[in-house]
Amino acid sequence: MIIVEMDRTGCLALLDAARMGRLGCARDGQPYVVPITFTRDGGYLYGFSLVGQKVSWMRDNPKVCVQLDEFTGTRAWKSVVVQGRYEELPDRIGWKTQRDRAWSLLSRHADWWEPGGLKPAGEAPTPHLFYRISIDELTGREARPVQ
Amino acid sequence: MIIVEMDRTGCLALLDAARMGRLGCARDGQPYVVPITFTRDGGYLYGFSLVGQKVSWMRDNPKVCVQLDEFTGTRAWKSVVVQGRYEELPDRIGWKTQRDRAWSLLSRHADWWEPGGLKPAGEAPTPHLFYRISIDELTGREARPVQ
Repeated sequence: MIIVEMDRTGCLALLDAARMGRLGCARDGQPYVVPITFTRDGGYLYGFSLVGQKVSWMRDNPKVCVQLDEFTGTRAWKSVVVQGRYEELPDRIGWKTQRDRAWSLLSRHADWWEPGGLKPAGEAPTPHLFYRISIDELTGREARPVQ
Repeated sequence: MIIVEMDRTGCLALLDAARMGRLGCARDGQPYVVPITFTRDGGYLYGFSLVGQKVSWMRDNPKVCVQLDEFTGTRAWKSVVVQGRYEELPDRIGWKTQRDRAWSLLSRHADWWEPGGLKPAGEAPTPHLFYRISIDELTGREARPVQ
């Protein structure tokens, strides 16, 4: 098996093929990682969430990381890492175009609102929101079997 | 679909069934997430890595997060989050028992040294190391289809 750096085109292709990734955020130096669904449009990843721990942390510190991967065998995989900033798309004048765009992109897929859109049974409902993450840095690695 | 909090037994069962998770570390408030393979023994997750960005970051800030999940359908999944501290198992007197134990546990599985154990082709080889992550906090959520 050899490992090679992926170029930007390869990284973007994986971003566009993936529906799910793992979002990392951090508070007081403590990282927190959760699965998210997202869709890419231009230089952003768009997502949807209820307000909870991750949103609270990202409001305090918008520096985030999204990692996604694809395993096609134990010796064949790709992993892409996005580093960027979290930004909410508020439900008020001036943001309608971006919110409609996010809705349009995310709603192409069934179950687009899961897992970020649901809370455990018994917890009080919280407001939901659209957000986006800027793709400030994009890197990837690919493992290939040696022929 | 309903979402429920998983109990400690359920979280540990997923940790023991999983071979791979996503490790989050952070430096200067910037999270970094990468896939790792690990194995649990008692209150620790054991892993292996070459020295690179994640090890460098964890040496600076040992607060880490490991997230793993299992999807058995779009409406049936489990996700577990470990928060703990990174600790190296150095190759010197006093650590032999822990290192041998880590080796023994990790080597039960084929390909246990991937993906953390390989660098992109062309990069200079770097030292490898064993590490462990204390399971300080363990939480999980499970989604189940509504019957």
